[in-house]
Amino acid sequence: MKSKFPYSKEVQLAFKHEPPGRWMAKFPQGAIRLNSGYPDPRLVPSEEIKGAMARLLEEEKDLPLHYIGSPRIPQLEKFICQRMAERGAPTANEELLVTSGACQAIDLVARVLLDEEAVVAIESPTYMEALEIFQNYTDKYISIPIDENGMKTEKLEEILAERKRKGEALPRILYTIPTFQNPTGTTLSLERRKHLLKLAEQFDFLIMEDDAYGELGFAEKPQLLKALDAGERVIYIGSFSKVVAPGMRIGWAAGPKELIEVLGWFKKDLGHPFAQSTLSAYLETIDFDSHLKKLVSVYEAKARVMVEALEEFMPESAAWFMPSGGYFLWLQIPGVDTAELLSKAHEAGFVYVPGRFFFLDQQEGLEFLRLSFSYTSEENIREGIRLLGQILDAN
Amino acid sequence: MKSKFPYSKEVQLAFKHEPPGRWMAKFPQGAIRLNSGYPDPRLVPSEEIKGAMARLLEEEKDLPLHYIGSPRIPQLEKFICQRMAERGAPTANEELLVTSGACQAIDLVARVLLDEEAVVAIESPTYMEALEIFQNYTDKYISIPIDENGMKTEKLEEILAERKRKGEALPRILYTIPTFQNPTGTTLSLERRKHLLKLAEQFDFLIMEDDAYGELGFAEKPQLLKALDAGERVIYIGSFSKVVAPGMRIGWAAGPKELIEVLGWFKKDLGHPFAQSTLSAYLETIDFDSHLKKLVSVYEAKARVMVEALEEFMPESAAWFMPSGGYFLWLQIPGVDTAELLSKAHEAGFVYVPGRFFFLDQQEGLEFLRLSFSYTSEENIREGIRLLGQILDAN
Repeated sequence: MKSKFPYSKEVQLAFKHEPPGRWMAKFPQGAIRLNSGYPDPRLVPSEEIKGAMARLLEEEKDLPLHYIGSPRIPQLEKFICQRMAERGAPTANEELLVTSGACQAIDLVARVLLDEEAVVAIESPTYMEALEIFQNYTDKYISIPIDENGMKTEKLEEILAERKRKGEALPRILYTIPTFQNPTGTTLSLERRKHLLKLAEQFDFLIMEDDAYGELGFAEKPQLLKALDAGERVIYIGSFSKVVAPGMRIGWAAGPKELIEVLGWFKKDLGHPFAQSTLSAYLETIDFDSHLKKLVSVYEAKARVMVEALEEFMPESAAWFMPSGGYFLWLQIPGVDTAELLSKAHEAGFVYVPGRFFFLDQQEGLEFLRLSFSYTSEENIREGIRLLGQILDAN
Repeated sequence: MKSKFPYSKEVQLAFKHEPPGRWMAKFPQGAIRLNSGYPDPRLVPSEEIKGAMARLLEEEKDLPLHYIGSPRIPQLEKFICQRMAERGAPTANEELLVTSGACQAIDLVARVLLDEEAVVAIESPTYMEALEIFQNYTDKYISIPIDENGMKTEKLEEILAERKRKGEALPRILYTIPTFQNPTGTTLSLERRKHLLKLAEQFDFLIMEDDAYGELGFAEKPQLLKALDAGERVIYIGSFSKVVAPGMRIGWAAGPKELIEVLGWFKKDLGHPFAQSTLSAYLETIDFDSHLKKLVSVYEAKARVMVEALEEFMPESAAWFMPSGGYFLWLQIPGVDTAELLSKAHEAGFVYVPGRFFFLDQQEGLEFLRLSFSYTSEENIREGIRLLGQILDAN
């Protein structure tokens, strides 16, 4: 890309990977949304947030509307630290940075640890926004395939051992969504979690654990990598987007104090007092565990409806991972280019995300697609899958 | 700084300038705050924002709490574009990026245009957060002194011409707060504005125009650099922090479409639907010009109180620029180290910002201090200045 602007060296590198843009927003109005990684609209507590905000501004007046000052901001930090402790990963206040959603946290970690020489290990497929973020920094990757037990750590070990033997660069960080992964819905087994941490020590890399969906387990909540981490190898990324409301944009990074301090240097938006104190005022009014139970029962029922519809309407050759939590189901339809199929889905009145967007090498994703059971109603889920079956039959 | 973390090359550079940290928050409770660049608490429309938010969530339900979807977000963009046009700098939607306050916009521009080889031209003194941001990218600066007519552009021309003659690098960007500058309160004259734009063409650099205070002129609002710009030299940075509420964290960058698009690639917080749609719902309910008139009458009266108190209580040797808008007054007390004096101010019960924090070479700022007339009451302003006179007498 040629330009009249004096872009920095780093940005010139990023030009090689011009991002796909906001293509997610482009689908027919009224289409059944099996694409959106959004919470169920009925589970977004807009009434409660309205009440919390009114109480906040009555009690604190202008305080939450200044740069700093609301006592509810440290209260939110305390809530997060306490939750981390309950999940087996005690976090001190200096080990926490509240961010604008998980994405800002991922970007800050990338910003601080990556440059054009850095190698990043990623799951294949993985979260597309994370891919976009990393591509702003480096074009050196190690892709680790996924099966029903999450990332294949044996494969990772093989790759790392071979790179070491050949004197090639080892990764600085490994990015993983170990629990109810986006897009596959898979969960890394305990055995592999331990193996991964061993490899991090052995081959000297850091692990970025993106746990955006971790609270949404239908049956069990797997142990956090951070809870199993004895050697300060794990930087944990959390989020309220999937369990309260993404539009508030509140997430966090939890990790070694020294690293968190440096992430803070590069976080130049001066915090978000209004959004953070509103969320804090909302969290005061609920029992978080009961709140999660309610979410989980809704999402589990929706996942069941989706799986039943797939069993009814999909061709014999189709395959999927059974989701045990989170928002997503990953579907493979052998021999079908799901990006090509999308226009037919639009015509039929539903929408999904073609698999290719979750791969560094988009060719690997051609016959996959991501279905989200979180946003739309059970009725629509069934209807959307029925329509998918129909256009596949006609294909 | 030694560390066990594999920090990127860029971050290792930034370690040279370990930021001063959150020292602003450290002053005795109850002290008269002549330090805070905050709006007057009575002018922060918390009641109105509460009402706007209630209406927003009643009308839109969960929409503003998802990632995208609220129609009030494009409405906010339209409001900003329209305002830019009214101020003589028409801005198309593709030339606008809404950000988390001015700071995120400054950081994004720095991110996209700077690397360790880049030279940045800055006013001396200048906004301390901007200094911190630039120091994350480069340590090459050109400092341009300020007088009562703003940045001395003749001095800038001299420096640039000499650098050119010597074959030294010219700046990629020049950062300026041309109107009611932070910290000096000065305003760049029209003649110098035109001169600056000519220099930008001649020496091929971009101008970052930080206009956070530009709407708060007591008598007149100077023409925007962007309104005078014929050659796409100016990237304009705007903010609602000083005219609505800083805690909402909403600002913007307006500039050439191509650059704005790239800024968007590096803005990885996925927007702020909740805060932006709330602000948008609030702006619907007011007449913005009347709102500004109200603010200006309050700040003008407060500035007058501050100046009268200075005339009454300051020693003969003290000097200051007369503010004609904005939040700040810049005071010089020859022979006094204002950072040393601060502990005495704390004891006496008031607080200001020592001048040194606004300079790259802190030595230059020893006998200056920044007084803010925006936040505290007229009564407190007078009392604070009286106390300053008292500790100076005793010094």
